[in-house]
Amino acid sequence: MTVNQQKSWSVAELAAACGGRIVGDGTRRITGVASLDAAGPEDLSFLADPRWERHLAGSRAGAVILRRESPGAGFTAILAEDPYLAYAQAAAVVAEGLFPRTVMGVAPGAHVADSAVIGAGCSIHPGAHVGARAMLGRKVTLHPGVCVGDDCRIGDEAEIFPNAVIYPRCQIGKRVRIHACAVIGNDGYGFAPGPDKRLVKIPQLGWVEIGDDVEIGPCCTVHRGAIGPTRIGRGTKLDALVLVAHNVQVGEDVRLVGQMGISGSSTVGDRAVLAGQVGVAGHLRIAPDVIVAAQSGVSGDVDKAGVYWGLPLMPLGQARRAYATLATLPEMRKELRELAASVARLESGRVRP
Amino acid sequence: MTVNQQKSWSVAELAAACGGRIVGDGTRRITGVASLDAAGPEDLSFLADPRWERHLAGSRAGAVILRRESPGAGFTAILAEDPYLAYAQAAAVVAEGLFPRTVMGVAPGAHVADSAVIGAGCSIHPGAHVGARAMLGRKVTLHPGVCVGDDCRIGDEAEIFPNAVIYPRCQIGKRVRIHACAVIGNDGYGFAPGPDKRLVKIPQLGWVEIGDDVEIGPCCTVHRGAIGPTRIGRGTKLDALVLVAHNVQVGEDVRLVGQMGISGSSTVGDRAVLAGQVGVAGHLRIAPDVIVAAQSGVSGDVDKAGVYWGLPLMPLGQARRAYATLATLPEMRKELRELAASVARLESGRVRP
Amino acid sequence: MTVNQQKSWSVAELAAACGGRIVGDGTRRITGVASLDAAGPEDLSFLADPRWERHLAGSRAGAVILRRESPGAGFTAILAEDPYLAYAQAAAVVAEGLFPRTVMGVAPGAHVADSAVIGAGCSIHPGAHVGARAMLGRKVTLHPGVCVGDDCRIGDEAEIFPNAVIYPRCQIGKRVRIHACAVIGNDGYGFAPGPDKRLVKIPQLGWVEIGDDVEIGPCCTVHRGAIGPTRIGRGTKLDALVLVAHNVQVGEDVRLVGQMGISGSSTVGDRAVLAGQVGVAGHLRIAPDVIVAAQSGVSGDVDKAGVYWGLPLMPLGQARRAYATLATLPEMRKELRELAASVARLESGRVRP
Repeated sequence: MTVNQQKSWSVAELAAACGGRIVGDGTRRITGVASLDAAGPEDLSFLADPRWERHLAGSRAGAVILRRESPGAGFTAILAEDPYLAYAQAAAVVAEGLFPRTVMGVAPGAHVADSAVIGAGCSIHPGAHVGARAMLGRKVTLHPGVCVGDDCRIGDEAEIFPNAVIYPRCQIGKRVRIHACAVIGNDGYGFAPGPDKRLVKIPQLGWVEIGDDVEIGPCCTVHRGAIGPTRIGRGTKLDALVLVAHNVQVGEDVRLVGQMGISGSSTVGDRAVLAGQVGVAGHLRIAPDVIVAAQSGVSGDVDKAGVYWGLPLMPLGQARRAYATLATLPEMRKELRELAASVARLESGRVRP
Repeated sequence: MTVNQQKSWSVAELAAACGGRIVGDGTRRITGVASLDAAGPEDLSFLADPRWERHLAGSRAGAVILRRESPGAGFTAILAEDPYLAYAQAAAVVAEGLFPRTVMGVAPGAHVADSAVIGAGCSIHPGAHVGARAMLGRKVTLHPGVCVGDDCRIGDEAEIFPNAVIYPRCQIGKRVRIHACAVIGNDGYGFAPGPDKRLVKIPQLGWVEIGDDVEIGPCCTVHRGAIGPTRIGRGTKLDALVLVAHNVQVGEDVRLVGQMGISGSSTVGDRAVLAGQVGVAGHLRIAPDVIVAAQSGVSGDVDKAGVYWGLPLMPLGQARRAYATLATLPEMRKELRELAASVARLESGRVRP
Repeated sequence: MTVNQQKSWSVAELAAACGGRIVGDGTRRITGVASLDAAGPEDLSFLADPRWERHLAGSRAGAVILRRESPGAGFTAILAEDPYLAYAQAAAVVAEGLFPRTVMGVAPGAHVADSAVIGAGCSIHPGAHVGARAMLGRKVTLHPGVCVGDDCRIGDEAEIFPNAVIYPRCQIGKRVRIHACAVIGNDGYGFAPGPDKRLVKIPQLGWVEIGDDVEIGPCCTVHRGAIGPTRIGRGTKLDALVLVAHNVQVGEDVRLVGQMGISGSSTVGDRAVLAGQVGVAGHLRIAPDVIVAAQSGVSGDVDKAGVYWGLPLMPLGQARRAYATLATLPEMRKELRELAASVARLESGRVRP
């Protein structure tokens, strides 16, 4: 790794963090992470995908998390049942060193309303704003330029990255992470043509509720309800540039991947995965554990868990066959015409069997 | 509604705001809005969609805007010809209470250039920036982190939400609302390969003109013209994450729905609706009153009002049939092959009629 | 042009900037640029596209860049082999006048960490933030609200527009332009279901490296690597609302057009053009000089230079034929059924040839 850092950890510390068993020297010092082929003697690496196994023997890594011992390797092994999850736990320790959190209270240059309540251990950076009657829990971090509107509530240990905006009256859970330039609680898109055909605004008087442990990517927009809440359930993760429209209800541990969007009042069940650039129409229901592949258009309810793709949405296998056939359509049309000509000849008797 | 608020309104006040006729007690106090099934005795609700009629009898709402009297109901009725538009008008009164505007002038911590002109009744929040020679009309609100570039003009009563950015030399109409992290007037995307194949920047020297009563959602980008203006006409509404490229000309009361984008120099007629995730190619014309359904690709002029969908764009009915057939393509190919075999047998005389 | 400006240039100065040959009066003063039909006597215009030739004779422009003399025209001609590139060079001179750069050093109201290093001639606007140990080269401009994280490096003459955010440990090349509300280096989207099906965060410990002369549009997101860098090569240009996921490797002089997205770990070759709303799946390779037309879905490697379109991705000609046929699918199905009936009749002998 080319970036500088001062901190280091012993292999034993990292193994403890992930519950792994050490084979080798637990006192080795680790300063970062790297892939097996790029790692140096101060790097932690891991082997989860069998396709990377060929990089194991030659790896110069200081420590590797993996499933089974690799006799003769130069690294210290950390053995774990699920090396990828174990890596996530060990890497979380490294992350705290690479991106340290400073407790600064309300910094000079931050703007906090007198009526706001700020919990213990918060870090309100210069250039952050907290509106009237807003309530922040303990150890909340508001990076520079963050704007928290009037009457918002932010849960313990939430971290809001630079220039993210939370409109008034929204509720954010504990340990939520909202990335830069994401917008929570803007007006939903509600307009109706008046008698003169000019568009009349439907005031958007609801709010947004975001559950614990949600992560929201940069430049996402989660619109306040027209009436009542838009909800994002516990543990759900939004990638970047995702749009969640007014009064949408998203379940728990849902994955909403980059540039996908959900129209107003739709419901997404727990653990669903809606892949990149998917569009979901309004007022429909997607069942728990549904997976929708990239760029699909969801225009009706999806009642059954399973993998779907396409426009119209189909079970994945059917969609793959349909789209594969699409490429052959011009040939099919040509064959059809030739066949029609043959049949016409047969019918007219010009071809005598 | 679970959010706190102090303000309340009598039913009579709300009925006056929407020109409705009161049946019942006009002195009841209302503190918020809710759907028929969620409303309590201090909430205003409405019935516009007949599918909600079944929630009417059991509703605990304090007041309901609806078309006809509902004998025996516990609420005070506000009768109106168009209950949805009447609700919009009454809700606008509630909105002023929920989201009050403070006139603060130029707050300490705002950065306003000496040569800027700020109208009466403006609110320039801490952390907002106004560039040299910018001219703001009366009662303009710039929320924290808003950046208005040099030589911009902003019309009366415009409201620019936190961290939205307006590049230099742009013109914004009256009562325009620009939501958080929207960007107006950034360079359009103009690059050409030079003789060495490296990309050369075409300087973007135009500007953006936004008409009165336009609303622009969060994280939208409206690019300045390469030469001359990009224009958004009066009353047009952009949802979130919409892209309007350089020198696009958008008419009046147009609806541009979430995550759609329009390429350079295209023209969109009045009252058109371009739905979510639609893409419009460059240098083409879309007629007034055209509706393009979600995820469509518009790659040619659309000369006639109507509803369209698909890639290629087709009249809606045709598109529905085409996409419905797409799912059956593999079967069609199979049938075609079987048919070809049958015809070949017929031609060879193996099947004797 | 309707916007005000004070600066002016002689035609000779502009001709010198683009290496053009003057035919006419080189002392004429130019104050702006306009298209041939809109230009006035103080405007520079150009003729590159032959379709605009009909506007030449009637143009009131003060000066026109074009390929061949236009006898009898009222303007001063600037002759150049490639008028569009020559215009780009002349317009760059005008741009410096329209959007002047003030050297202000670290302005009052900017927040710069004590340990940051700021090169000579930088302009750190009020409300900009520079983190600990960040290193800025010479003549860097950070507009209001820009946030540069700890340990970042920014190259000479880079310009970061208002409210753009660069997370810690990222490296930005020389003359890079990053537009408003773009986000560089946010966490990539890495989550895995744990044993209880709850999503576990994979810490994103990599960084972003952006080469010289890159331009990144507003509201783009370029995610830091999970491990190691995400890279954008020299001279590459991102339009608005583009998503580049973790560990993507983009080559040089690539064009990524509005609202397109690239999933994790994919590689894009030099000079590729990925048009608007294109989606690229993860872990795949796109060869140099590949052009992918708008809204396509790239779900496999593209090994050969050429123009492609569609979902599935096909060579452009094939895709055009396939999508054109899509519109006729319902007819094809009808024909197929009629043909099947005819064949059945032939087989049953009801039609006697």
